[in-house]
Amino acid sequence: MTTIKEVAQLANVSVATVSRVINKVDNVSYLTKERVEKAIEELHYKPNDVARTLFQGNSNMVALFVPDITNPYYPELARAIEDVMNQHGLTFILCNTDDSYEKEQTYLKNLEQKKIDGIIMSSSSISKQDAKRISAPIVTLDRKVGMDLPSVTVDNYKGACQAMEHLRNIGCRRIAHIRGPLRDKNAGERLEGFLDMVKDENWFDSTYVQSGEYSYETAVQATFELLKKNPEVDGVFVANDLMAAGVLKAAIEMKKIIPDDMAVISFDGINLSKTTIPTLSTMAQPIYEMGSTAANMIIEQLKEPSKKIKSKVFDTELMERQSTRREDTVL
Amino acid sequence: MTTIKEVAQLANVSVATVSRVINKVDNVSYLTKERVEKAIEELHYKPNDVARTLFQGNSNMVALFVPDITNPYYPELARAIEDVMNQHGLTFILCNTDDSYEKEQTYLKNLEQKKIDGIIMSSSSISKQDAKRISAPIVTLDRKVGMDLPSVTVDNYKGACQAMEHLRNIGCRRIAHIRGPLRDKNAGERLEGFLDMVKDENWFDSTYVQSGEYSYETAVQATFELLKKNPEVDGVFVANDLMAAGVLKAAIEMKKIIPDDMAVISFDGINLSKTTIPTLSTMAQPIYEMGSTAANMIIEQLKEPSKKIKSKVFDTELMERQSTRREDTVL
Repeated sequence: MTTIKEVAQLANVSVATVSRVINKVDNVSYLTKERVEKAIEELHYKPNDVARTLFQGNSNMVALFVPDITNPYYPELARAIEDVMNQHGLTFILCNTDDSYEKEQTYLKNLEQKKIDGIIMSSSSISKQDAKRISAPIVTLDRKVGMDLPSVTVDNYKGACQAMEHLRNIGCRRIAHIRGPLRDKNAGERLEGFLDMVKDENWFDSTYVQSGEYSYETAVQATFELLKKNPEVDGVFVANDLMAAGVLKAAIEMKKIIPDDMAVISFDGINLSKTTIPTLSTMAQPIYEMGSTAANMIIEQLKEPSKKIKSKVFDTELMERQSTRREDTVL
Repeated sequence: MTTIKEVAQLANVSVATVSRVINKVDNVSYLTKERVEKAIEELHYKPNDVARTLFQGNSNMVALFVPDITNPYYPELARAIEDVMNQHGLTFILCNTDDSYEKEQTYLKNLEQKKIDGIIMSSSSISKQDAKRISAPIVTLDRKVGMDLPSVTVDNYKGACQAMEHLRNIGCRRIAHIRGPLRDKNAGERLEGFLDMVKDENWFDSTYVQSGEYSYETAVQATFELLKKNPEVDGVFVANDLMAAGVLKAAIEMKKIIPDDMAVISFDGINLSKTTIPTLSTMAQPIYEMGSTAANMIIEQLKEPSKKIKSKVFDTELMERQSTRREDTVL
């Protein structure tokens, strides 16, 4: 294997100069740079990334923390981030935290030791102290944490209100909500939007809100509960697409025709929403764009460490599909 | 920040001994080891992973190459591999190759420079020469490549034959196939199984095989084609679950009742197959187990570099669900 010394000899420069060229330090003349690069090529010299990390103090690696990559919301985010990292020659590390504080802490410790360059987190649990211990820039994604970290999120409250307006516009009068987990802030904001839209209705009581846990199975059960208690429900706003697939399932088993007997709209806009029968109306998040935005924030922070990066809140977009498309709607 | 020298002073040993303890080299007495570990704890000393990599020649990182993490087959594999890596203190790198030979080569070069410890690949394109250039162990997953690398796969041919038998058992007489992409070996083996099961049928001709590209949209089109040419088809074997969701869609638009008019069975067993309406019968791969098996092969190879790791072929399992469950079946 070629050594840096051999490159230096062939190029007739010092080892330090070769190192400066490899590490793209500026104070090397154009002609010297060219000579070194030619020598590197001629000798098939491969600079050792690990040695370079020691020299430069960074690893060219960026990590993404997600609760669980098998949740269909996350692969598209992960793809977007990896695409940006790949364009910038950075290696992408994936960590499944299961929303466990301990797992998160172990990952953070390991990555800090690896001199990670940046971390993108979908986490509810990271604290101010945790973040301070990490020298790499952190961006939170999909979730805001109550502190001074830049974040990329969507306006859940506004999206929820728009979903409710859409159900009203197609004629729904008794609208229920399948909510997400209690601990999840996004679920809380979507619930809040729902509640603000029904608070003046005299028929409304708490049985019109049923709890799912963002999963298919919990939503099937929640819908059975809901329709047993309130068979007259003619519209449901569901806190995510995966649960909406469960709502369709339960509704069909209970002989409801969708959307005529009961319209369904959900939240997220993952691919699944296009493949259900009927297809799902949903408040779509710009998932890929959110991922690439978070990735670019990290890149920006690496280029200009002192720059204060601004958080970004995206709007959701109404995707009107079969689950709310009534032919006979009188607006 | 504490240095290794301070640890050595407190423990009253040499720096080399501290290094041996950190790097788990064997020739340190139990008492010395204990003394060093106590000093490390007392001084909150954090050994630098990067420096350790230089010393030990490995990075404690393992990479997974997938064509695209947004294809719902891959997140579960990725999850399984990351779980195993995490248990062993290894960091998990994810690479999306888009089945591009160039992207794969760039990743390989970068990871080799990072002194990657092992690579798990879902790739059709890696060649013998490419693999030889990489010093880390490689395991291929989901796809076999025509060379001497250990692999984890399923028996596609056998699974296809079992799917066909199941359709026959529930009474299907005119069975068609929606095949996967031409370049994909798995798709080829599933097609072969199908063909061997219909080759003696006098009704069979090539219009009973339609090409999808493993995607939802292509399968919708392929099914329209199929049913236009052969409206009498009463069973379809589909090369993957995602396409089967498209088959359901097209069949329902063409007023076919599933499974009574036409039964559908597919391949893979991803979560999607449980959430369609009707739910999908499928030849399920043990996806999580396949991922963890591949990961454990890498771990084994790291522990014993000279050991020859054996390839593993899993069987698929028939999941009988609504899309083939005929109440009135006479067997």
